[in-house]
Amino acid sequence: MPGHVIATYVIETSLPLDQAAETLAGEQSTGTFVRVERESDQVRARFAAQVESLEEIALTGGSALPGTVGEPAQRRRAVLRLRFPLDNFGPSIPNLQAAVAGNLFELKELAAVKLVDLDLPIDFAHRYGGPRFGIAGTRQLMGAQTGAMIGTIVKPSIGLSPAELADVVGELAAAGVDFIKDDELQGNGPSAPLAERVAAVMPVLRSHAERAGRMPMYAFNITDDIDLLERNHDLVVDAGGTCVMVCINMVGLAGLAHVRRFARVPIHGHRAMFGSISRSPQLGFSFRAWQKLARLCGADHLHTNGISNKFYESDDEVLAAIAAVRTPLADTKPTVPVLSSGQWAGLAHATYAAVGTSDLLVLAGGGIHGHPDGAAAGVESMRAAWSSAEAGGSVREALASSSALRRAVEAFGPARE
Amino acid sequence: MPGHVIATYVIETSLPLDQAAETLAGEQSTGTFVRVERESDQVRARFAAQVESLEEIALTGGSALPGTVGEPAQRRRAVLRLRFPLDNFGPSIPNLQAAVAGNLFELKELAAVKLVDLDLPIDFAHRYGGPRFGIAGTRQLMGAQTGAMIGTIVKPSIGLSPAELADVVGELAAAGVDFIKDDELQGNGPSAPLAERVAAVMPVLRSHAERAGRMPMYAFNITDDIDLLERNHDLVVDAGGTCVMVCINMVGLAGLAHVRRFARVPIHGHRAMFGSISRSPQLGFSFRAWQKLARLCGADHLHTNGISNKFYESDDEVLAAIAAVRTPLADTKPTVPVLSSGQWAGLAHATYAAVGTSDLLVLAGGGIHGHPDGAAAGVESMRAAWSSAEAGGSVREALASSSALRRAVEAFGPARE
Repeated sequence: MPGHVIATYVIETSLPLDQAAETLAGEQSTGTFVRVERESDQVRARFAAQVESLEEIALTGGSALPGTVGEPAQRRRAVLRLRFPLDNFGPSIPNLQAAVAGNLFELKELAAVKLVDLDLPIDFAHRYGGPRFGIAGTRQLMGAQTGAMIGTIVKPSIGLSPAELADVVGELAAAGVDFIKDDELQGNGPSAPLAERVAAVMPVLRSHAERAGRMPMYAFNITDDIDLLERNHDLVVDAGGTCVMVCINMVGLAGLAHVRRFARVPIHGHRAMFGSISRSPQLGFSFRAWQKLARLCGADHLHTNGISNKFYESDDEVLAAIAAVRTPLADTKPTVPVLSSGQWAGLAHATYAAVGTSDLLVLAGGGIHGHPDGAAAGVESMRAAWSSAEAGGSVREALASSSALRRAVEAFGPARE
Repeated sequence: MPGHVIATYVIETSLPLDQAAETLAGEQSTGTFVRVERESDQVRARFAAQVESLEEIALTGGSALPGTVGEPAQRRRAVLRLRFPLDNFGPSIPNLQAAVAGNLFELKELAAVKLVDLDLPIDFAHRYGGPRFGIAGTRQLMGAQTGAMIGTIVKPSIGLSPAELADVVGELAAAGVDFIKDDELQGNGPSAPLAERVAAVMPVLRSHAERAGRMPMYAFNITDDIDLLERNHDLVVDAGGTCVMVCINMVGLAGLAHVRRFARVPIHGHRAMFGSISRSPQLGFSFRAWQKLARLCGADHLHTNGISNKFYESDDEVLAAIAAVRTPLADTKPTVPVLSSGQWAGLAHATYAAVGTSDLLVLAGGGIHGHPDGAAAGVESMRAAWSSAEAGGSVREALASSSALRRAVEAFGPARE
C-alpha cells in the first residue's frame, strides 16, 4: 500500500537533536535498543520511519519530563516531522496510534514529546468515513437553518429524576432552544437510567414539535460499555430522538468509530478526559492532531471549549481549536464545533467577532439555567445576543433591546465586546 | 444502588486547599460555575461528591499546569480523597471515568491533578469479571508450571515477511521459549496482515508442539477497529492460537472489556500510549489506578515495564507497578505482570531479588534477538539466569555455568546483582 503518514512532534532533548529524532523514529518502526539480526538495510529502507524535517525552536521553560537522560543545560527544543510508511499499519486508527503515539511518550531520551499534528492519506477518510450528518444534517434535524445553534446542558448535571428532567426539557423547548444535552456525568446510572430519561423526555419533545413545527435536538448520553452502545443508540432513535452523545475518550476513538457504523442520527462528540493527554505542554496530544482522528471516526459535533471558559485554556487556544475543527479534512463532511464551558450570552459578540461564522453549536449550561429569571430567560438572552452579533450590532445595542440580556449581565458580569 | 467509589488524587492549587477540593467535587458531580435553580440541598445530599479526606503534602517542584489561576507563591500540594455515590454512574467503567477522570483535568483551579488510586465496590468486578485465565490459565496453556515465564517480542518489530516470521518463531520455539509476541507496531498492516501471520506461524508452532509436547504461547496482536476484534480473535483461536494481544489504549478500556466478552484465550494487555496519560507528574493517571481498570476489563497479562528499562521509569516505579498488579483485586483472578523494555538475562537476579516471585512473564526483545550468538542463545541466557536466581544462586555462579549468559554480558554489559 503506497502512501505515508506525517506525524509532527514538538520534542525536547538533552541529546543531539538528530540523535533523539532517530531514536524516536527507530523505536516507533524497525528498531529497538540494539540492532538485531534481521534488521537488514532492506527492512530499514522499506519500513523505517524517516526524519522528514527537524527544526530547532526556542525553549519555553517547561520542566523536563521525569526520567530524562542527559545534561539539563544541553536541553533543546525542536519541531520534528516523521514520515511513516502506510504499509506498516494500514489505514487503521488503532494501529496508527501505536506507531505515532505509542511507547514514544516513555522514551527517556525525550524531555518533552507532544504529537501536534498528523497528515493522513485519503485511505483513512475512505475507511472511517467521517461525520454522517455534519453541519447541514444537524441543522436540518433541529430545524435551524441559519444563525448560531443555541443549546444547553441539563443542569444540575446529575440528580434530577426523569420527571424533573422532563419538566426542564419542556421549559427549554418552549423557550426556543435548538439543542439540549445530557451532562457527561449523566450516563446510565441507577438514579436516572437512559431508558427512563428517553421515556420521560421524548414525549415532551414530540408534543412540543407538534405545536411548534420543530423539535429541539436532544443529545442523550449513550456512553457505556461497547456492547451496550448500539442498544443505547437504538433506544434513543426508536423513540424519535435525533442525536446521541458519546464521551469519546471513555469509549476510545475506536468506540466512536464503532458507533458511527450504526448511527442513524448525529453523534455529539464530548471530549471529557482530553485534558489528561493534552494539558501538559510537554506531553501527549495537541487538540489539532486529536480532532482529526475524532472527526474521521465520525464525530458530527465536537467540543472545542469556548472563550472565557471555566477551564484552563486561553482564548487563543480555544480559537485555534475552533479553527482546526473548521478546517476541511479530506473529503469528509464538516463537523460542528461545540463551544461549551462557562458560556453565556455576554460572550456572543466577542466569539462571533473572532470566529466569523454561525456554524457553531453554542452551549450555555449555568449561563442558561443560572439566569436570574430562569432557563427560558437564559435562552432568550443567548438568542438576543447572538442575533445581534450576527446582524453586526454592538453589545450596547443588544443590551438596549433585550431585558433578558441585561439581566444576564447583572448576574454574570459585563458582556465582552 | 448503595455503595460508593473513592478516588484519590494528588492535587496542587494556589487557592485554599479546601476550596479547590470542593470545586473539583462540585464540577464532577452536581455543580457548575453558578448554583442553578434545581440544585437543591436534597440533590446535593444524595448525589454530590464528598471530600473524604484532604492531607497536605510537600511540593515537589514541578511546573504548574498551564492556565492555573492564583498566586504561584501560594501553591500547595495535597492528597485528596473524594467519595462518589455509585448511584451517579453505576458500575460502568466508561461512565465512572467521566466522573473520576473527566473534565477535572482541565480545571484552572488546579495546578496539578493526578488520579493516583481508585477504590471500587465489588459491583465492578461482578460486571466486568476480570481475567478469564490469569496466571494459572496462562501457565497451563503454555505448559510452564513453575519458574518465570520467559518470552520475547518478535524483532525487528516490523518488516519481516510472514515467511521470515515463521523462521524466527521456529528458532525461538526450538530454543524453548515460553512465550512470543508480536510487537505493538505489528498490527494488521498490508505488509504482514494478521491472517498471513497466523497462517505462517501456527503450523510451525503446532509441529513444534507435536515434537516437544508443549507449544509456546504466541500473542498475536489483534488490535484494530472494534468491529474487527472478534474476527481477528477468532482467526487466531480457530488456527489453534492460545493468546491474543490487545493494545489497551488503542481500543480503549471499553474495547478491552469488549474483547473479554468473547475471548477464548488469555488477553495479553499492552500498555502502549500509557505514557501520554501518566508520565507528567502533575497530570493524568498513576499506573496504580489505571491497572485496576485494565484488570477488571479482563487483561490476563499486563505490561508493567521492567527494571533498568529503556524508558523513563525508575526501578522503584517499576517495582511498585509490579506490586500493584500482584495485589489482589476483589475476587478476580490474578493478572500476570509482564516485564518488558530493555530486558535481558543480566537483570534476572536483581529482578527476582526485588520481586520475590516467579509468577512473571519476562520479555526480552533485543535481549534475545540481539544476543551475539543469535536468538536461541538469547533464550538460553534468559533461562539460565532466571533458573539460577530462583534457585538462590548468585550472578557469579550463573556466569560460571552458562556460556550463553557470559556471551550476553559481553554484549549488553555487566549483570546486575
